[in-house]
Amino acid sequence: MSTPGVAIIGVGQTSVGEHWDRSLRDLAVEALLSAIQDAGSPAVASLFVGNMMAGELTGQEHLGALVADFAGLRGIEAVRVEAACGSGAAALRLGCMAVASGAADVVAVVGVEKMTDRPGAEVTAALAMAADGDYEARQGLSFVALNALLMRRYMHEHGVTREEFAPFCINAHRNAVGNERAMFPFTISAEDFSKAKMIADPVSLLDSSPVCDGAAAVILTSLETARAMGRRAVRVRASAIGTDTIALHDRRDILELRGAATSAARAYEQAGVTPSDIDFFEVHDAFTIMSVLSLEAAGFAKRGEGVRLGLNEEIGRTGRIPITTMGGLKARGHPVGATGMYQLVEAALQLRGEAGVNQVPNATLGMTQNIGGSGATVVTTILEALA
Amino acid sequence: MSTPGVAIIGVGQTSVGEHWDRSLRDLAVEALLSAIQDAGSPAVASLFVGNMMAGELTGQEHLGALVADFAGLRGIEAVRVEAACGSGAAALRLGCMAVASGAADVVAVVGVEKMTDRPGAEVTAALAMAADGDYEARQGLSFVALNALLMRRYMHEHGVTREEFAPFCINAHRNAVGNERAMFPFTISAEDFSKAKMIADPVSLLDSSPVCDGAAAVILTSLETARAMGRRAVRVRASAIGTDTIALHDRRDILELRGAATSAARAYEQAGVTPSDIDFFEVHDAFTIMSVLSLEAAGFAKRGEGVRLGLNEEIGRTGRIPITTMGGLKARGHPVGATGMYQLVEAALQLRGEAGVNQVPNATLGMTQNIGGSGATVVTTILEALA
Repeated sequence: MSTPGVAIIGVGQTSVGEHWDRSLRDLAVEALLSAIQDAGSPAVASLFVGNMMAGELTGQEHLGALVADFAGLRGIEAVRVEAACGSGAAALRLGCMAVASGAADVVAVVGVEKMTDRPGAEVTAALAMAADGDYEARQGLSFVALNALLMRRYMHEHGVTREEFAPFCINAHRNAVGNERAMFPFTISAEDFSKAKMIADPVSLLDSSPVCDGAAAVILTSLETARAMGRRAVRVRASAIGTDTIALHDRRDILELRGAATSAARAYEQAGVTPSDIDFFEVHDAFTIMSVLSLEAAGFAKRGEGVRLGLNEEIGRTGRIPITTMGGLKARGHPVGATGMYQLVEAALQLRGEAGVNQVPNATLGMTQNIGGSGATVVTTILEALA
Repeated sequence: MSTPGVAIIGVGQTSVGEHWDRSLRDLAVEALLSAIQDAGSPAVASLFVGNMMAGELTGQEHLGALVADFAGLRGIEAVRVEAACGSGAAALRLGCMAVASGAADVVAVVGVEKMTDRPGAEVTAALAMAADGDYEARQGLSFVALNALLMRRYMHEHGVTREEFAPFCINAHRNAVGNERAMFPFTISAEDFSKAKMIADPVSLLDSSPVCDGAAAVILTSLETARAMGRRAVRVRASAIGTDTIALHDRRDILELRGAATSAARAYEQAGVTPSDIDFFEVHDAFTIMSVLSLEAAGFAKRGEGVRLGLNEEIGRTGRIPITTMGGLKARGHPVGATGMYQLVEAALQLRGEAGVNQVPNATLGMTQNIGGSGATVVTTILEALA
């Protein structure tokens, strides 16, 4: 596209955690109204709701109309967008199209997921619907198992030990301490990581993001309208989706995330930038190995060298390429369909200089990458601070 | 929007029925490849998949990547769009935005649903997720029950008998005879309708559309590209979504489909036309009462008089406002997330003069209305024949 002149003029987010006393609609409405207020309460014409599993886990489809209704926006255009764990940023991509096509002047995008109302086995089964239902999930492959295959192959092929992945978890938890909405705002040591309970060898508990609830939202409009409103805006310089085979076994090389590489390449082209121009990168660290493969696919490290970015302390707040600056999926939490929107809200806050103690110094260009399934859908977004 | 210059250059559809030997991906890929071939095999850049219940009924989310993968389109942008039974036309609306924004030159939109692999009670429960999960479905209200409330109220308020709804069913079945892809290509008499088995009084079996499988697809591009390709094109003159309360009990007047009225008004405004300009209207006859309320909301009859359009023989192929020209949801079938796309494919065929024995004479402007839930999401599309 090139998203000609689309800007984020408002952001909102709920805390991430086990919201036993809140329903899915409560969370979505809280984030949405908060974003609308942050944008100066403009009239919203279209709503895009990113969500993966409301049907399976809460017995509710049709979230576009539901959220519009309960947010006091009855009548407006509203649809749900689904791309597994990439649903949030995919919804933003479509919201940008709505603005860029002239279909709507002010667009709201909210990502929401309510995962904690059902038993863990049901959540695992629902998550597996992001994989190939007939040829992966039905054979018993869960997402932890799929990521274990990836991590084991990476360790084998590149001669890396499990302990060498620790910096990614340590960095995420360190950053979560400064994020009041994070689910796990506490630090983790290398020893903790080393001794963590194994889930699917070599993926341990501390390589895995949590099951949780949350919602995050942004308000989009054209750059012209944002200027006319006098709003503090963050520009969407690029938003691009790339896909790959849905099943891991259909890839020639499972360590190459082609969807991520395609999506990043398209985003760089739209924005006219290269990886070296990016000031921070919100990676999709659903599992540690995903951070590493994502950094390699997006051009921040050569094949097999992504893990070194952690070892060389390049991923911290003042490093070469800060990642998971507010805790990431690992420590802020991973409410699946909301995750892409959390990444975007956090990136927007960084670019507005409102990231508090987690502020990346002089951040003007931030990138997020939201991944669905084993990299079958990847959405890369590049945001830019406006003076 | 005004969908500036978007055209349909290819259509494809599977037969509608109980496809025991075909999976969801088989159906989607068949319709999609057929549409691509019909369009002259252009390179597709983006794919929008309309679907409601693949998660609940087939254990598969993430249909964007899945369908792209199995259709031989790995790598392209792909997402799923969901708006309950309005998913198909909602996907078209987003596809139009993709073209109009310049995000993609050639866009594929496919609607698909696979309903017959699960027991009826599970299908009924999954369909009820289009209603308010917490306040309707959980209280036992199914969609047949919700439509029974609407029909009973209509009969009471307007002094109409059950038998007076018969022409809608008779017309749909008569038109299905000429549609080789229809599920029920046989005629129904007034006596059949009168004696039909009651499902939820006053909704009988012959007021209800069937549980079935199917997929339908279109290829979109800009008018400029369509002309350059020398393709036989149908122009998308309008595509508009309107919403209403998700729960029936939250409406001041349940016989007023405000979402449909809003959606139709927006579509008329985009196209710069009035109901009298429309040559035929593909209504969402999931239940007979929905056809009647839709005709009233879209301005083809005054309140309480929609049922007379049937009694006065105005809905037939050569009547004032032909509806369900290829059998409608009632007789072609209602594979939920695919239905909106079937309506659009059929409307495009009418406007290309390729509707065979069901051809509406001199059709140049056709309208479709695809409804999600009890009218909580309504998508109205207006298509125009190009010389």
